[in-house]
Amino acid sequence: MAKCNRILLTGAAGALGTLLRKEIAHMATTLRVSDKADLGSASANEEVVQCDVSDAAAVMEMTRDVDMIIHMGGVSREGSWESVLQSNIVGFYNVYEGARKNGVKRVIWASSNHAIGFYPREQVIDASVTPRPDTNYGVSKVFGEGIAQYYWDKYGVESVSIRIGSCFPEPVDRRMLTTWLSYPDLVHLTERCIMSPRVAHTVIYGVSNNDEKLWDNWMAAHIGFHPKDNAEIFRAKLEASTPEPDPKSPFIAAHGGAFASMPHFDD
Amino acid sequence: MAKCNRILLTGAAGALGTLLRKEIAHMATTLRVSDKADLGSASANEEVVQCDVSDAAAVMEMTRDVDMIIHMGGVSREGSWESVLQSNIVGFYNVYEGARKNGVKRVIWASSNHAIGFYPREQVIDASVTPRPDTNYGVSKVFGEGIAQYYWDKYGVESVSIRIGSCFPEPVDRRMLTTWLSYPDLVHLTERCIMSPRVAHTVIYGVSNNDEKLWDNWMAAHIGFHPKDNAEIFRAKLEASTPEPDPKSPFIAAHGGAFASMPHFDD
Amino acid sequence: MAKCNRILLTGAAGALGTLLRKEIAHMATTLRVSDKADLGSASANEEVVQCDVSDAAAVMEMTRDVDMIIHMGGVSREGSWESVLQSNIVGFYNVYEGARKNGVKRVIWASSNHAIGFYPREQVIDASVTPRPDTNYGVSKVFGEGIAQYYWDKYGVESVSIRIGSCFPEPVDRRMLTTWLSYPDLVHLTERCIMSPRVAHTVIYGVSNNDEKLWDNWMAAHIGFHPKDNAEIFRAKLEASTPEPDPKSPFIAAHGGAFASMPHFDD
Amino acid sequence: MAKCNRILLTGAAGALGTLLRKEIAHMATTLRVSDKADLGSASANEEVVQCDVSDAAAVMEMTRDVDMIIHMGGVSREGSWESVLQSNIVGFYNVYEGARKNGVKRVIWASSNHAIGFYPREQVIDASVTPRPDTNYGVSKVFGEGIAQYYWDKYGVESVSIRIGSCFPEPVDRRMLTTWLSYPDLVHLTERCIMSPRVAHTVIYGVSNNDEKLWDNWMAAHIGFHPKDNAEIFRAKLEASTPEPDPKSPFIAAHGGAFASMPHFDD
Amino acid sequence: MAKCNRILLTGAAGALGTLLRKEIAHMATTLRVSDKADLGSASANEEVVQCDVSDAAAVMEMTRDVDMIIHMGGVSREGSWESVLQSNIVGFYNVYEGARKNGVKRVIWASSNHAIGFYPREQVIDASVTPRPDTNYGVSKVFGEGIAQYYWDKYGVESVSIRIGSCFPEPVDRRMLTTWLSYPDLVHLTERCIMSPRVAHTVIYGVSNNDEKLWDNWMAAHIGFHPKDNAEIFRAKLEASTPEPDPKSPFIAAHGGAFASMPHFDD
Amino acid sequence: MAKCNRILLTGAAGALGTLLRKEIAHMATTLRVSDKADLGSASANEEVVQCDVSDAAAVMEMTRDVDMIIHMGGVSREGSWESVLQSNIVGFYNVYEGARKNGVKRVIWASSNHAIGFYPREQVIDASVTPRPDTNYGVSKVFGEGIAQYYWDKYGVESVSIRIGSCFPEPVDRRMLTTWLSYPDLVHLTERCIMSPRVAHTVIYGVSNNDEKLWDNWMAAHIGFHPKDNAEIFRAKLEASTPEPDPKSPFIAAHGGAFASMPHFDD
Repeated sequence: MAKCNRILLTGAAGALGTLLRKEIAHMATTLRVSDKADLGSASANEEVVQCDVSDAAAVMEMTRDVDMIIHMGGVSREGSWESVLQSNIVGFYNVYEGARKNGVKRVIWASSNHAIGFYPREQVIDASVTPRPDTNYGVSKVFGEGIAQYYWDKYGVESVSIRIGSCFPEPVDRRMLTTWLSYPDLVHLTERCIMSPRVAHTVIYGVSNNDEKLWDNWMAAHIGFHPKDNAEIFRAKLEASTPEPDPKSPFIAAHGGAFASMPHFDD
Repeated sequence: MAKCNRILLTGAAGALGTLLRKEIAHMATTLRVSDKADLGSASANEEVVQCDVSDAAAVMEMTRDVDMIIHMGGVSREGSWESVLQSNIVGFYNVYEGARKNGVKRVIWASSNHAIGFYPREQVIDASVTPRPDTNYGVSKVFGEGIAQYYWDKYGVESVSIRIGSCFPEPVDRRMLTTWLSYPDLVHLTERCIMSPRVAHTVIYGVSNNDEKLWDNWMAAHIGFHPKDNAEIFRAKLEASTPEPDPKSPFIAAHGGAFASMPHFDD
Repeated sequence: MAKCNRILLTGAAGALGTLLRKEIAHMATTLRVSDKADLGSASANEEVVQCDVSDAAAVMEMTRDVDMIIHMGGVSREGSWESVLQSNIVGFYNVYEGARKNGVKRVIWASSNHAIGFYPREQVIDASVTPRPDTNYGVSKVFGEGIAQYYWDKYGVESVSIRIGSCFPEPVDRRMLTTWLSYPDLVHLTERCIMSPRVAHTVIYGVSNNDEKLWDNWMAAHIGFHPKDNAEIFRAKLEASTPEPDPKSPFIAAHGGAFASMPHFDD
Repeated sequence: MAKCNRILLTGAAGALGTLLRKEIAHMATTLRVSDKADLGSASANEEVVQCDVSDAAAVMEMTRDVDMIIHMGGVSREGSWESVLQSNIVGFYNVYEGARKNGVKRVIWASSNHAIGFYPREQVIDASVTPRPDTNYGVSKVFGEGIAQYYWDKYGVESVSIRIGSCFPEPVDRRMLTTWLSYPDLVHLTERCIMSPRVAHTVIYGVSNNDEKLWDNWMAAHIGFHPKDNAEIFRAKLEASTPEPDPKSPFIAAHGGAFASMPHFDD
Repeated sequence: MAKCNRILLTGAAGALGTLLRKEIAHMATTLRVSDKADLGSASANEEVVQCDVSDAAAVMEMTRDVDMIIHMGGVSREGSWESVLQSNIVGFYNVYEGARKNGVKRVIWASSNHAIGFYPREQVIDASVTPRPDTNYGVSKVFGEGIAQYYWDKYGVESVSIRIGSCFPEPVDRRMLTTWLSYPDLVHLTERCIMSPRVAHTVIYGVSNNDEKLWDNWMAAHIGFHPKDNAEIFRAKLEASTPEPDPKSPFIAAHGGAFASMPHFDD
Repeated sequence: MAKCNRILLTGAAGALGTLLRKEIAHMATTLRVSDKADLGSASANEEVVQCDVSDAAAVMEMTRDVDMIIHMGGVSREGSWESVLQSNIVGFYNVYEGARKNGVKRVIWASSNHAIGFYPREQVIDASVTPRPDTNYGVSKVFGEGIAQYYWDKYGVESVSIRIGSCFPEPVDRRMLTTWLSYPDLVHLTERCIMSPRVAHTVIYGVSNNDEKLWDNWMAAHIGFHPKDNAEIFRAKLEASTPEPDPKSPFIAAHGGAFASMPHFDD
């Protein structure tokens, strides 16, 4: 049974958006998909809207008659300040203004581990820690979580901020033995965020059931996220194909991995 | 092998008492069952005592020659102040006085999630939080936990205060997807409370291994409670038969559910 | 300028009540004083009501047309269970029911350090700790704080629960070097509780600015309580007149002092 | 003795900027003052730069050869999203990029209590709490603190984020009895932030030594901020001239006061 | 694939050393085993070094050309102060000096639950608690953890301090239903400590997946320790063969069991 | 009035010992002073014992008929491992064995900020943090606090571990603006430790009332330590005579100052 009348999925042409377009369609009577890139033709039960989130008027239109938004749009990794600003700050604000004015009840969106990327590996954290972003991108996620909290406290728009680890078909480097989020686990997590009777503003780490863990989701236990995949099965393959990292290099020393040591993007 | 020479089970005619009368009989050489209601005739190894816990002298007699008490007596849901007072305050005190004077070593009793019923759903809690009772009934449980702590600190009577969620044969509303305690899990929990070599005064949440959780039992890990049931298997049925709650209604917004919004009982 | 139209002061014939009757009169246009004992004739601006708090109907009448209640009534030290029950449980509930039904906006009342009396001296605590009552009396204060929280969460009646240390004209034993609350500091604290624009349910320790401290009021900093007296000036006198305690005796080892080791009152 | 060779003070034409222009001049050999508004002619030891912080190139030039920045520029209260975006997000980023590229060692800036404005009055907080912004303006401060943490962790630029309460010549409403920061205390705090041998990224509440407190600066004790003023001396005047607030109105119920209840600025 | 070129295993003639000699050989190209007792002849890939850790020069030699050290040497239970001093303080220091000067990157060593043995059973703890050692032996482990932290902070030598519970082929008393660490789980834990890309200084409790737990390893989740054995399967056997303990006897009341009540060894 | 019959002061020939010899004499009927160095002749009420604490038999004799010990003996700064071992580990143990066997009721001793010297300046700490020693010397203090806790838990010998900052007649470098403990404040603290009716094992930071603070003594508020001196009055002098430190140099970045960066003593 569909949980919602209409769900809007932004960033539907991206890697995760493409996945969710297919896998969460069953959760809504109508799935409205959007992206600034071409999305092909609409499937049954789909509405396709081409839209750049930095265009406030277009976003206001796109969010009309929507119950929930799965916001995967915006830039999904470190980029120039200008691109982060337009997509993840201006565009993000537009999405929440659309949600507020159009009476959308819940926004589920892709925050990132890069909002807390400077914590050292030996410090396991939960959702209560002070942000330590590692990039322009990470700062935009701190901004986003601030907006999500504000729209809940002031306007009653619910949010789940998912601090996604490394969401790939399979882990591609040794850090992902710890940070990997499998595609099925992302789908499961998204479903739980839709199904939950009340989320207020909940911050949850999006990470599979890997043997090695940096993030403790006890504060989001009400969501019912129980990931099933485990990056450990890729260990032999990854250790054979990638060099052993120095424990003091930021790549392994910081939660955010390489982002915590990459030079400023615009330099 | 029986763990105790004699266990007293109060409230043995109630729903949970009836269950435990049958399921924990094997833990004691003699099971003394009591209630103010009729309990039928005694089974093998049973002693039957009809007793109203508000009668101090009768309780003193009933608690003689007992090793442990499973106290399920008293009112088990919101009621008039007078009924709560007589059963859960006066009666409860009588049980502890009986335990103290008769040298009972441990009391295991039904506290309730309504002792903390005003926490909001998005806040997962453990046993260290300040009580936020939602009813006269909930306040009586706060009183009870105070008594339990006091009798341990001062008189060395051990207690386990079980903050029971929703103990029913199966979940009957959507909130119970989160708060359900199955009958087998209650039995298992009671057994662990009896078996534990030392409990001092331990507060533990009585809740099954549901996907959605509000209560974190890490502080009671020494008890060894590992529930096996999961309300999730009833989800489809419950969602088909019950309406979707408003995330801002107390029914779903508060740990205590409907109790947190019901009008004062005596009004 | 008076803060309130009418304040009700209960227990006005007791030691602290007599003090407050005189010292907080200026905070209200009318001060209604009550006690089960005789209160003499009414001063200017006073109304005198003789009332036993265990009489629900009389309390309902007494709390009519009142803005705030300073509840100093009830038994003020360990007593028989029956006396504690009638005064501090039944009577206390009556006061809150009167407040709720009569629209009283705030109750300021005498909780006690005996609600946490079993903490050891070497553990400094704040208002977030789990109660550890040391007597029937202490348990009644745990009950009272539960009621205060409940009436705020559910009915919007505000409360300040003052965990009074040892309120005497001057300290009379060595423990009071730590726990003493001077009369002027009690008056000041009561005034702050009346003046504060919002208290919700606040728990605050009522203790002077003694050199030795067991209780940290950081969580109640919004009240603006800044005690000025210090028991230290009585040290020489007390050390000359009282024997040095054994550091392992409950008298000095427990926050609650002698209460933590006195035998059960009814034995 | 001057602490720095050159300090840049932005927002020098604003109320606080005008104050600091005069009062911290002695801390640097040269004080470079800037604003987008006219600043008049330069005093001795002053350099005057007219600059809009949203102009990246101009900011890069303005931050050259500077030891520390006192960043008071940007919008200082709730405004349209567009104005907040240009001044407090784009402009703020420009300032930190200038600091990074020009080797400025420390930025001291005006964050705000509106970054945590939705905490309720009865909850006293320290600097570790999750942000709860109350306005567009408050969200821009959450963004700013994220930038400050990031530039410390990644680039070694130090920051003090001062969550200013209500900085006025004297308190003008009842909320400011709690949130007031006097001019002398702001000057003292700014001096301590300049003098401190190491601040890394420190968050500190900018509030005077008022009797009523919502914010606990224990985590910033290394800064040595010891405010001397106390809003309490204005109580009689304020209570005479302003109405008593309802304890449930956001004006007094939320740390952020009226901001927590004002409608969206752009509506 | 071997994780290390050369691992040094000390205490290789002891019970746990003998186990690890066999089971972790595959983790290194060369396993150097040492003990003060005779170790027999070297297996393939082994180097055998007879060495008393209290001999600094010998330890310096023994730690040459080593990547990691598994330090199981020293006295493994309460002993005379002189023996604890020579083995677990002087000898322990020698091992770390060898590690530092020879560029060993990681030390994995047998700390003990006796470093925290005086916590009461009803208090479940994590790795952040203040040490409460129960014996000379326990104090030597507190010393060892201090050294491990110091060598990481100052010299960059990594460590895992494993607070081992009760590591035996099977549990031999009732306390071990809670504290047992099976041999396979010790092997698995040691492997994870070797494999982890970065450990800095991590403290982890070495305990199997027993139903009853006193220790919460959430702070070491990055290690990926997932024990599989459970002492519960031995319950019936142990309860049949050992007497039921008094809940107030130190044997069961303290984390450290009998150590918490044994008289001073040298008396 | 003397608090004790006999106090033993060790290290009485050192700088702090010389101070305390004079200033705490009034606290005991007899002051027994000891050192391995010459102490001159005994004053009235004094007993002089020359003793090296590494001599167990001599220490056993020295601690006979003593009520309290002020243990200032041992090495008071970083030294060779051998010297730290003999004085601060072996000698320290000897003192506690003497206390235990001779029935001494309390030991007050000089622990050090170097037990936590690796915390960064921007992190203000209390007594609950995990030790992070910065030297051999600091590790010996971690050992000592372990012994103090153990002798309290097991043998009932009370202790105050004073984590002394920088105790000098006046501050001599810029770090001491934060860490200075004046001589009068040390005397006052020692007196409070003697006077307190019960200390169990308390850890307290020995630091004056300096404007800049790294250490929060809230957990030891029961001791009643209220330092009066403030290093700030020496600021101008120190800033004129010492260079400004780099905020990233360990000298200012670590609580332990220069100790956190000095090379290993024995190298």
